[in-house]
Amino acid sequence: MDNKQLQELQNARKEKKQVVLATNLSSGVSELLYPFETDEITPLLEEARLALRFDKPHETEVVNEKIFLNIFNPPLRLFIVGAVHIAQKLAPMAAATGYEVVVIDPRRSFGSEMRFPNVALDDRWPDEALEDLSPDRRSALVTLTHDAKLDDPALESALNSDVFYIGALGSNRTNDKRHQRLISKGFSEAAIKRINGPIGLDIGAQSPAEIAVSIMGELTACLRGKMTK
Amino acid sequence: MDNKQLQELQNARKEKKQVVLATNLSSGVSELLYPFETDEITPLLEEARLALRFDKPHETEVVNEKIFLNIFNPPLRLFIVGAVHIAQKLAPMAAATGYEVVVIDPRRSFGSEMRFPNVALDDRWPDEALEDLSPDRRSALVTLTHDAKLDDPALESALNSDVFYIGALGSNRTNDKRHQRLISKGFSEAAIKRINGPIGLDIGAQSPAEIAVSIMGELTACLRGKMTK
Repeated sequence: MDNKQLQELQNARKEKKQVVLATNLSSGVSELLYPFETDEITPLLEEARLALRFDKPHETEVVNEKIFLNIFNPPLRLFIVGAVHIAQKLAPMAAATGYEVVVIDPRRSFGSEMRFPNVALDDRWPDEALEDLSPDRRSALVTLTHDAKLDDPALESALNSDVFYIGALGSNRTNDKRHQRLISKGFSEAAIKRINGPIGLDIGAQSPAEIAVSIMGELTACLRGKMTK
Repeated sequence: MDNKQLQELQNARKEKKQVVLATNLSSGVSELLYPFETDEITPLLEEARLALRFDKPHETEVVNEKIFLNIFNPPLRLFIVGAVHIAQKLAPMAAATGYEVVVIDPRRSFGSEMRFPNVALDDRWPDEALEDLSPDRRSALVTLTHDAKLDDPALESALNSDVFYIGALGSNRTNDKRHQRLISKGFSEAAIKRINGPIGLDIGAQSPAEIAVSIMGELTACLRGKMTK
């Protein structure tokens, strides 16, 4: 890896790009790949996509050449809108699973540090906060407030981004009404399908903690490319 | 509720029984029900079973009488065999979800308090520990050691108990070999089917924390009566 590549790699990481450093193990020649910035399908790009998706550097063989794929993924992030009971359970579970967590809630009485020890709290309105935090392909967003004034702007920001997971708490009825509002704002059916609602895996969750488990399960399945719905 | 009933209720709780106090809201007459200690099927018993399963006291109507069902469930418990990386993630998640957690591992170097802050550690052999801890219908057991010397005695204890969930880490091959060993010990196919192996929901889990999430999801689904396999 030469100086020019190193500089490029550093820049790419600063911009939170998903990069793979592919090194030919016989020749020592290496190249930087951005597999998710192209639709091209080659054996090497497909292997690189898998390595990024599973967060696993590995050795592979492409056209009789041994290639080592080193991966550089930006941090996983989870934005939780609504400093509610479920958030109190979800935030530490997500942090333990390797996510940088931000709980967004402009209602100051909800988002107290006492209720969320060691969690980053953001008291801006969701659309303002998310514009600043710029969610990417390694980010997930969950809305938990049951209040369209807070949830809708967050969901609209998420739909306009590359987040790998969007989940919205609420009954089927709430989801149907939200669907109508988003359609009237000009979002397509395909776009709205990105929203997982009702949120979480169907495990009969009862308590806030069990709902948090069902959300973490669904979020992980999306991250790792296992479709559940 | 009279003194005799109160005494009976206290004894039942001491013995970790699942009890429902059913009170007729017109007459005020109440009775104690043990819905899981009988196979009898009546509307009242079925309602009481649901209330216990979902941990929710509620009002119901049976044969035109309004009945309030108050539930007394023993604590949820999770026994984790193997003080390994996954256990380090699973123990706090389960504790946050309301389980009393015990990590069982006779290998002292594994089960250090430094690696498991605020978790009950038991350094007896699994069969000895479990005989003493007596798992019940509100208990779950998970084996994570990959070592038949430790996992098998734990699984045998669990199969001889009423635990609501048994999970065993290991590949399909490991599971097949374990299956053979349990058959040769005299366990029936139906009994062995109680073991969830490979363990956890199929969410593409990669890291120890993600595997812990998949286990918590499967365990919750079993507790709440949602079959997944």
